[in-house]
Amino acid sequence: MVFCSDSRTNAGFDNISTYSKMHPFVWPGDRVLVLLSAGNLATTQSVLKRLNTDLDKAARPNLLNVANMHEAADYVASVSCEVQKQQSLRDSSGSNLEATFILGGQIAHGAPETLLIYAQGNYIHESNEHPFLQIGEIKYGKPILDRVIKRNIQLEVASRCALVSMNSTIRSNLSVGAPVDMLIYSKDSLSEGRRFSLTEDDPFYKSIAQSWSSGLVLALDNLPRFPWETDQTIK
Amino acid sequence: MVFCSDSRTNAGFDNISTYSKMHPFVWPGDRVLVLLSAGNLATTQSVLKRLNTDLDKAARPNLLNVANMHEAADYVASVSCEVQKQQSLRDSSGSNLEATFILGGQIAHGAPETLLIYAQGNYIHESNEHPFLQIGEIKYGKPILDRVIKRNIQLEVASRCALVSMNSTIRSNLSVGAPVDMLIYSKDSLSEGRRFSLTEDDPFYKSIAQSWSSGLVLALDNLPRFPWETDQTIK
Repeated sequence: MVFCSDSRTNAGFDNISTYSKMHPFVWPGDRVLVLLSAGNLATTQSVLKRLNTDLDKAARPNLLNVANMHEAADYVASVSCEVQKQQSLRDSSGSNLEATFILGGQIAHGAPETLLIYAQGNYIHESNEHPFLQIGEIKYGKPILDRVIKRNIQLEVASRCALVSMNSTIRSNLSVGAPVDMLIYSKDSLSEGRRFSLTEDDPFYKSIAQSWSSGLVLALDNLPRFPWETDQTIK
Repeated sequence: MVFCSDSRTNAGFDNISTYSKMHPFVWPGDRVLVLLSAGNLATTQSVLKRLNTDLDKAARPNLLNVANMHEAADYVASVSCEVQKQQSLRDSSGSNLEATFILGGQIAHGAPETLLIYAQGNYIHESNEHPFLQIGEIKYGKPILDRVIKRNIQLEVASRCALVSMNSTIRSNLSVGAPVDMLIYSKDSLSEGRRFSLTEDDPFYKSIAQSWSSGLVLALDNLPRFPWETDQTIK
C-alpha cells in the first residue's frame, strides 16, 4: 500500500498554512492504520483528538481494539459524524465543516485494505479495476493514476506515480502544496514501513519533478504528426 | 490559435448525448470567430440561435458588424445573460441554467484574441504567462497545459498538447467524450484554417492516444529511483 498526501490547508487565500494530512497509527506486529484527511481542518483535528483520547482511555471501540478494517472504518466514520454534528451546532455561518478520510492498513493477518470515508459517514473500498482512492483536490492528478495504477503494480512504481500525480496537482492548484508525505507499507510487515516527507527543495523531489517534466515533453515530441505535417516535410 | 472541444452533453447519466461545442463563424478575408460552449445545453443552443438570428436580421450589434474582439465578447455576454434570465423566469426547478463560453478569433487586422465569458457576463482574456483558457471540466487536462503551453509554441505542438489534454479528460471523466473537434487558426489568415473532428475510432486519434500512453509509461519508467532501490541493486 502506498499513501501520499500534501500539506497545505487554507481557510481563504489569506489564511494558508501547513499541516500534515497523514496520520499513521502503528503497533508493530499487531496493526498498522494510516488515516489521510481532507476537508475542514478543525473537524479533522477534532476527529484525530478523539481517536487519540479513545486510545488513551482504552475506550471501546478504539483503533487498537477494533477487530478488522471495516470495524475501524465504522468507528472513524461515527467519530467523524459526531464531530461534524457538534461543530455545526456551534456554527451559524454556514461554513463547510465536512471532512473526508482515507483509512488504510492491515490488522493482524487480515487483508490489507483502503477505505474512503465520506463526510456522510458511509464508506467504500477500492476495487480490482480501480485499485486506488483519492480525497480532496482529486481531478488534476487522476489521469496518470487511471492509466498506471493496477493491481500487482510494484510498490515503488506506484509510489513514483503517486508523487508525479501530486506534483502535477501542486503545480496546477494553489490549494495543494508541499511537503508531500509518503508512507509505503509492505503487506504483512505490520510495521510502519518507509515513511518520509519531501519538501519543495528536497533534491530527490526536485529530480523527480524535473525528470517527469522532461519525460512529458519527450512524450509530446514523440507523438505522431498531423497528416499535413508529414506531407510538408521535405527530407 | 488552437481550439479544442469534446462533444458529450448530459442531463443526468441516463440522458447522455452528442453535440458539437465548437461553433465557427467565418467570413474569409474579414473575420474569423470561434465560440466554444460549456454548461446548460438549452442555454448554449438559445444563445447560438440568437447570434444567428441577429446575423440574418443584420441587427446591431451582431458578429459581423462588431468592430473588435472585445465588442464581440460584450455582445455574446449580453446575449448569454439575456437568455439565462429568460430561461430562469420559466424555470422553477432550480436547475443550473448557466453557460460559459470561450470566444476566440481575429477581426480584420486586429490582434487575434481569446476571451473566456463567464455565466455572469463578465470576461477575461488569456495572459502572457498563461496563454490558454479552459471551460467546463477543466481540471483533469490542466496539468499538461500548465507545463507546455507558452507563447510562441508551434501551432501543431499546441494542438497535440490540446489533444492529449482532452484524451486524459475523456479517460478520467464520463461526462466528457469524443468526437473531439479541433480548429487550428493561423494568425492573419482570416480563413477557417484547419478544422476536423476526431471520433474515438479515428486511426489518428487512436495513434495519438496510444503513443501518449506509452510515452507516459516511459516517462514514469525513467524517473529517478528511491534511494533504497539503488542501494539494493546489485549489478
